[in-house]
Amino acid sequence: MVVHKYGGSSVATTEKILDIAKSLKEIYDKKEQIVVVVSAMGKTTNKLISLAHEITSNPDKREMDRLMSTGENQTIALLSIALNSLGVPSVSYTGEQLEIKTKGVHMKNTIESINKDKILKALDENKVVIVAGFQGVNAIGDVTTLGRGGSDTTAVALSCVLKCKCEIYTDVDGIYRIDPRIYSDAKKIQNISYEEMMELAYLGAGVMEPRAIELGYKYGVPIYVGKTLGLKNGTNITKERNNMEDQEITGISVNSNTLMVTIDGIPTYAHNLEPIFQKASELGINIDIISHNDVISENGSIAFTTPRTDENLIKELFDSVKISADTKILINKNVVKVSLVGIGMMTHGSVVAKIFNVLSENNLSFHQISTSEISISLIVDESISNQVASLLAKKFNI
Amino acid sequence: MVVHKYGGSSVATTEKILDIAKSLKEIYDKKEQIVVVVSAMGKTTNKLISLAHEITSNPDKREMDRLMSTGENQTIALLSIALNSLGVPSVSYTGEQLEIKTKGVHMKNTIESINKDKILKALDENKVVIVAGFQGVNAIGDVTTLGRGGSDTTAVALSCVLKCKCEIYTDVDGIYRIDPRIYSDAKKIQNISYEEMMELAYLGAGVMEPRAIELGYKYGVPIYVGKTLGLKNGTNITKERNNMEDQEITGISVNSNTLMVTIDGIPTYAHNLEPIFQKASELGINIDIISHNDVISENGSIAFTTPRTDENLIKELFDSVKISADTKILINKNVVKVSLVGIGMMTHGSVVAKIFNVLSENNLSFHQISTSEISISLIVDESISNQVASLLAKKFNI
Repeated sequence: MVVHKYGGSSVATTEKILDIAKSLKEIYDKKEQIVVVVSAMGKTTNKLISLAHEITSNPDKREMDRLMSTGENQTIALLSIALNSLGVPSVSYTGEQLEIKTKGVHMKNTIESINKDKILKALDENKVVIVAGFQGVNAIGDVTTLGRGGSDTTAVALSCVLKCKCEIYTDVDGIYRIDPRIYSDAKKIQNISYEEMMELAYLGAGVMEPRAIELGYKYGVPIYVGKTLGLKNGTNITKERNNMEDQEITGISVNSNTLMVTIDGIPTYAHNLEPIFQKASELGINIDIISHNDVISENGSIAFTTPRTDENLIKELFDSVKISADTKILINKNVVKVSLVGIGMMTHGSVVAKIFNVLSENNLSFHQISTSEISISLIVDESISNQVASLLAKKFNI
Repeated sequence: MVVHKYGGSSVATTEKILDIAKSLKEIYDKKEQIVVVVSAMGKTTNKLISLAHEITSNPDKREMDRLMSTGENQTIALLSIALNSLGVPSVSYTGEQLEIKTKGVHMKNTIESINKDKILKALDENKVVIVAGFQGVNAIGDVTTLGRGGSDTTAVALSCVLKCKCEIYTDVDGIYRIDPRIYSDAKKIQNISYEEMMELAYLGAGVMEPRAIELGYKYGVPIYVGKTLGLKNGTNITKERNNMEDQEITGISVNSNTLMVTIDGIPTYAHNLEPIFQKASELGINIDIISHNDVISENGSIAFTTPRTDENLIKELFDSVKISADTKILINKNVVKVSLVGIGMMTHGSVVAKIFNVLSENNLSFHQISTSEISISLIVDESISNQVASLLAKKFNI
């Protein structure tokens, strides 16, 4: 048994849907049991969001979930029509029909449970089961959606309850150590651990959403990421790291959704900083790297990064907290976060030294540096970010 | 309490949806309780059908129902978003959520029951309730659709369970005695009985589907048909006929979806005819008017009409039944059915005489004539059908 997931660009036209159906038929003919999760066709979700925004800038979130869920509902019907037309019996189900129970706020729900009865019954009847990704139903029976990357989460969650492998098909042929558009010698990763993949995903490598990987990690679901209808030479995400790949650094992510805020000329006592970060938390601002000089001084400075998409919230923050006239707020949108990820880092103390070596040899500077157990992130000017990433990729043989 | 229904052309754009929301707000502000049924936006249903037909000419019907239902699901979300944005609390429900239980074959289901609990609860909470038309859910939990005119049926069925009036809003300003495009002096009907309206609808007057009217008749639901956002001067369909309108003929329908089959040179014994009509029934051919000369002869003739849309089935019929070499099958697609409807007819024997008078005075001929309790239909050549309808409209002061 296997769960397949096809993203929006893979099902963008009826022709592509029919091609996927033909490839599923080949697997079906080999007597494999298949559950397929699909996203909305191409740009459908964005088009539906635009329709709502033609009406109001702040559409009701319950109704947005209803609206957006129709995209996936169309794809499941069309794929099932395609399979049935090829003589492969198949049946489509919405999140509501499968009782994919979710909780949380509309547009950002998380999956609590899935009733697998209908799926097992249909598989028993030799049917291919097609499931609408990205959606579920909450305790009061309203349709919900799972937010960004929701279809990946649906697929992995189904693999969890069905105890089977999850294959994520997309328009790239696997996960690369670094985006090949930035570093053309980038190598594809054959095997990666959940922890490293999560770290890469959190840090901005866009192929899969962190929460889907986290779910796979928790339940030990093997995940494969590869190209739709392509060769089976993508990336496997598993518990065991391939020991043959004894790399210090598994991958490098370059995240340009980064904005740096510097608060300059502030007495850096905790009681001065607390109101700012308290308000930031209330506004839901996503604080990433914080740095300040350790010396408590009357004329200190503290900096932090957030996603650029939080820019309006940052402005709201400094409109609403009291700041002394001597304090300057600097917002720098021209920065990028370059992150190195690798379990190998834990045992190799030399990574930071090598990074500084690369920077100094090339006369490149950075704004902030931050380390976690298996990653190191640098905030650098956008103008040099690709250069920094490429030099580091070369240095660490990425 | 009132049920409104808005058809596809009334909700074709987000601008139109917002206009409807504004008009509903005015009613809501007067403390009326409102349930709104909507169709899919503009040509959405046809576009969805085209997508399926890009994949196969014979799409799985269960999946077609799933696919088509997404159209209405988009409209309910958008209308609810519009109302909420205007400060009118509203909530949308699918047929599945409201437990609109249906039975029958996919794409042609009929409503069995509706659970009104969610509706009453939402109305109690001062919300406008928005319901997806045209859809329901069957006993095994699959989404179903109700076939042609399904949204009208949803609206009237809701009025039945809520025991309230049903207002059908469309792009025409009421029901006319005869299509004004055929007879420009056509008068609008202010009040019409269910029986007459059903008869007109069955005979091809396109404004409302007969089954929705039949349902209203059965449960005594007052139905209003008028223009979306127009003056309230449309047509009321009620039990009581307005006695002031003492017309012999209430309306004239002109139905060009008519095809006449003549079987010429057949011994018109029942045992000769039975296999033909048995097979026609198996094929689901909709036999309308049958006529033959009463003389049983070795060289007889029999004719019947069917919808033109059944033409392929008619060809299949005569490919599969045995017919003697002497028998000729003539299929005439250039005929139209002109029907006169009126309860007054029951007490006025003069209608047939007047029809023949009009035809003979104008040297016009007909192929078939058929009478029912409250209607008379003529099959005439398409080339003269509008002339016949106009002359009859004038004669009967329609």
